[in-house]
Parts: sequence; structure tokens; C-alpha cells
Amino acid sequence: MESVASNGGTVEDYVAGVLAGDRAILARAVTLIESQFPLHEKQAQKVLQELLPHTGRARRIGITGVPGVGKSTFIEAFGCHLIHQGHSVAVLTIDPTSKRSGGSILGDKTRMENLSRQPRAFIRPSPAGDSIGGVARRTRETMLLCEAAGFDLVLVESVGVGQSEVALRSMVDYFLLLVLPGAGDELQGIKRGIIEMADDVLVNKADGDNRQRAEQARFEQQAALSCLQPATPGWKTEAALCSARTGEGIPEAWQRMERFFRELEPKGVIAQRRQQQAVDWLTDLIRDELQRRFEHHPRVLARLPGLRQSLLRGEITAVSAADALLADFDGGPENSNYDHKN
Amino acid sequence: MESVASNGGTVEDYVAGVLAGDRAILARAVTLIESQFPLHEKQAQKVLQELLPHTGRARRIGITGVPGVGKSTFIEAFGCHLIHQGHSVAVLTIDPTSKRSGGSILGDKTRMENLSRQPRAFIRPSPAGDSIGGVARRTRETMLLCEAAGFDLVLVESVGVGQSEVALRSMVDYFLLLVLPGAGDELQGIKRGIIEMADDVLVNKADGDNRQRAEQARFEQQAALSCLQPATPGWKTEAALCSARTGEGIPEAWQRMERFFRELEPKGVIAQRRQQQAVDWLTDLIRDELQRRFEHHPRVLARLPGLRQSLLRGEITAVSAADALLADFDGGPENSNYDHKN
Repeated sequence: MESVASNGGTVEDYVAGVLAGDRAILARAVTLIESQFPLHEKQAQKVLQELLPHTGRARRIGITGVPGVGKSTFIEAFGCHLIHQGHSVAVLTIDPTSKRSGGSILGDKTRMENLSRQPRAFIRPSPAGDSIGGVARRTRETMLLCEAAGFDLVLVESVGVGQSEVALRSMVDYFLLLVLPGAGDELQGIKRGIIEMADDVLVNKADGDNRQRAEQARFEQQAALSCLQPATPGWKTEAALCSARTGEGIPEAWQRMERFFRELEPKGVIAQRRQQQAVDWLTDLIRDELQRRFEHHPRVLARLPGLRQSLLRGEITAVSAADALLADFDGGPENSNYDHKN
Repeated sequence: MESVASNGGTVEDYVAGVLAGDRAILARAVTLIESQFPLHEKQAQKVLQELLPHTGRARRIGITGVPGVGKSTFIEAFGCHLIHQGHSVAVLTIDPTSKRSGGSILGDKTRMENLSRQPRAFIRPSPAGDSIGGVARRTRETMLLCEAAGFDLVLVESVGVGQSEVALRSMVDYFLLLVLPGAGDELQGIKRGIIEMADDVLVNKADGDNRQRAEQARFEQQAALSCLQPATPGWKTEAALCSARTGEGIPEAWQRMERFFRELEPKGVIAQRRQQQAVDWLTDLIRDELQRRFEHHPRVLARLPGLRQSLLRGEITAVSAADALLADFDGGPENSNYDHKN
């Protein structure tokens, strides 16, 4: 893992290196973005600001599915197919469960052995982070770096647990749900509300003995889709089969995506989605930072445990507890009904 | 509708009246809670604080379902059944779409004509409000008032759109989902994730020609339930039939609820849920108030439109826009990485 402290590059070095498509500098720029040192954060924002005019030209594809569905095997096969078609592919992940360690990077590169050897592929595992918001923010910014470095396709994989799919949907143009053949599992995407966000559903591992069960799963997914609003206006989400292992269905999956962009880009649907995503992202960032400031405020920290206990014992209402804590937080007092000390 | 301004009661009057079960004073206390005048809000919190030791003894039952499923007819029949069983019943609603007008009160009482004539029933429509959070808060506080007034069952109905079910689930012990017989509709609860929160599912309107379709719907709901984690640990959610019109299935629905409380109360499951709900509620209140203070801050108000435009034009990142806005908001500067003016 690159050392953040020994990076030593200036903002200009980073910008020039990324724009030149220099892979080593790109990797270091991502490390800068992942750093949580305030000075690095400031520098990272300057780099991003300079690169911003050169971003946004890639197609952003999200891939999700429950753990075990074969996301890595799929991305390996799919990514290699894209590269044979002449594309350059960046592969990123959102994994709020990941820890900042060399192990996961090695793990990811080993998982996608063929793809990682391709000169036109760039694989970067999930940043570590305490919150899904922080992890998603860094993945999103890494996506911008990859776009500035000239990659024309960005694949972002979510780990398929917690809120990772929602975070992923909020940063990609097209969203692919992978599901498994097999009793009960078909409902995974349906019951958790993921299928509602999908632009296509692929039943993976549709090979060998699985073939018939996969066809049944596809049928059930298609039935569920028929009662749903499409995730993207003007696009009919469909369920199909594939096998990342044999490669079957991979070219067809890419044809669907090409058609998605060919049909929806001229209508402005993609541009509109990206604008909405930017506004939503701003709202999320502000909410998270307000929450962070509040939780770290010394007077709030001092009073929270006692008020929480009183609340749990039923001695005060949540409203009284909130009033007391918010009075201790001197944020925007001129617009508050609460009593303040200053 | 009672006039807030002419209420004229002291905190002691309200407390004594509610504890005595005086229906007129209870109704006025609810109106006080619904008032958005800061002075009334303060008085309402004092009333609640005094009443708090007398709350929490009712069983809290949430009832939801898509519009048209027959929630009012069900509550009318179900409420009358409960009263015949010797209970006293308060009926509240969460409807973020309601407007503050006399019409809806009249409407609700007309909808539940038999129940509203019962001396041991108290029907109060949804408070009006700009946000689901505000509406839910007032319904929750009204629930406490009704408990202090001695009602032993509180039924809370959600309008079945938007986030109203989630708000409802967060304030009740037991959560009932009503669904309709009929093709496609069975998936309503499943696809929107509501069924995952349900402690029981009832297929309403299972009468006459509908009978067979209702049985089919029950079968499908039961199949969906079989792949889900139970909403309440130790309780198996089941799907059954009822007809609010003929009364069929109503006593059985109540038997299920009685069993729910009989089995889970001794295990502490209900108490634990209520504690978690209190903590979640506190978190929500704080988040909403921080957001409100931020959005009303003069410097934020002044800069937001311009920054939003730059963001939409792709000239700045969401992170830069958030940084600029948060620097303008003087909340908790000592714990922030952002530059501040004061």
C-alpha cells in the first residue's frame, strides 16, 4: 500500500499525472483522496477541483448482488470482454465492511487475475471508512479521478449488504443486479427492495446442473419486474441468464448496456440523473457533517450519556432530551426556538 | 376544531384533566400538542413531562395498507370488537398529506360512525404538518396523552404512502399490514418492503366473489413471509383472511394480537423495542433540527442558490459546495475542519 506521507506530490503533479493517464500517479492520487488527514483532504479537494472539467465522460455502471453471487468472477469476465471491445475499464468497490489493510487489495487483485493483468484495466478496492457515507464519498471521488485519467467505463461493485446498494445506485448511470438460481434466493433482491433500483437483472451461475433452476429464477424475477415501475424512465428492466464461469451471456449483458446508453443519452435521461445525484450527494454530505459536529461537541458529549439513561428509564421524553442536547449545541442559535447560553 | 388561543388552561389543568380521563380536556391537550406556536410547544412539553410517569401502559398497535384496502372500515369493526371485549380504544392516524382543516376531522368521524359513538373510544385524525417527522412526532405525543388518560389500546393508522409506514412502525409494539385480494396487488406490501415490518398480514375484503382471490393472495403472502426474517424476534408473522364488512376474521385478528403480547411481554421483547424506539426517535429529532437550523441560516440561504447552480453545471464538486455552505454555518466550529469566520 502506498504511503500517504511519502507521496510528496504537488497539486500540479497530481493533476498533470492523472490527465496524462499515468497509472502510478493515479494510484497515489486515489490514496490521497482516501486519506483522512485534514491537510490531505484539502489537497485532494484542490486536485479534484482542477480535474473536474475533465470528468463525467465515462459511463458509470453499478453491479450488485448478495455475497456469493459471483460478483468478482462476473466483473473479471465482463471487464475482459469490455477490454477486448476496445474499452478501458476502471473497477472500484464500495465495501463499508472493509478495513484499511494491504490484505484486501491483494485479495481483490488475486480475485480478478486476468483483468488485473490488462494494461487498460485499473482495479482499486474499496476505501476503508467508519461510515457508508464516507466510503461512498471516496469511491465517488475515485471515480472522478479515473474519468480524468481517461477510462471510458467505470464499474463499481457493491458488497451487497447494508446500505451499500443504495449508495451505489446514487453514483452510477446503470445498475445491474446479479442473482443466484435456487429456491428462496430469487426473492433476495425483491424483498430487500434492490430489484426496484435495477436496470437489468442477471441470473448468474446459469450453467451445468443449475440451468433449469436458473431459468426458473429468471422467470420469477421477470414476474416480479412486471409489477414494478422501471428504475429508469423509458427503460424496461429485464431478467436474463449468464454464467461468469463459462462466459455465456456476458456479450449480451454488454449489448443491453450499450442499448441503454444509446437510447437514453439522447433523451437527456442520464444527464438528468447525474444532476439529481449531485444534489442528493450535497444533501447527504451536509447532513453527515452536521451530525458529526453535533456528536463531537464537548457539551453534547458531556450530557448525552445522562440524558440517554433518563430517556431509557422513561423519565423524560425524546423531545425533552433533544431540546436539552440541542440547546447545548451552538449551531445557528439565531434561528432556533431553543434557549442558548451564547 | 378547538381554538388553540382560547384554550387558556394551565399545565396543572391539562395534567389533572387528562389523568381524570376528561375527554374534552384530552382533546384540548392534543390540540396544544399540535400547535406550532413556540409558547404552546413549551407548555405542551411541560404537560407531557408531568404525564410521562402515567404513560406506556397501553398496547400500541399499528395498522397500515395501501389506500383503498379498507383501513377505516377495518378499524371501525375492530375497534367496536375491542370495546365489546371491555377495552378502551384510542384511534390515531399518521397522514403527512393531511391539511389542518375541520374537514378531515369530520371526515374521519363520519368514516367510523359506530366507533365514534362509543364512550370508550377516542378518535383523533392526523395532525397536519410539513414533514412526516413533524406529523409522526405529534401522533407519538398524542399517543402518550391517550395512555395517560387511561386508554389501554392505542390503534394508529398510517395512510399507506410515502414514509408513513416506517414512521408508524417506529412507534408501535405490533404492526398489522392489510392487503387486498387481486392480481398484482399482493406484491404491494412485498415490493415496498412493508411486509418485512409486519407482525401479521390480513387479506381484507375476503367476502363474496372475492373469497377465492383472497385465498390465493393469502397463499402468496404466506410464501413471501416464509423467506423473510420475522419483524419481531420470537414471533412468526402469518397471513390470514378477514372481511371488515361482514366482521369475519376480526375476533381471530385480535386473538393473534393478544397472543403476541402474552408471549412476548414476559420475554422483555416489547420493552426492548420501546427503548430502541426512544433512542431512534431522539436521533431523528436531532437530525431534523440540525437540518432545519442549517437550512434557515441566513448565510446558508444567501449562498445556496449560487452554489447549487455551480454544482449542477459541473463547475464544483458536491464536496466543495458542502464545504462552502458548512463554513457559513457557525455550528460547532471548534470541532470542524472547516474555516470559520468566528
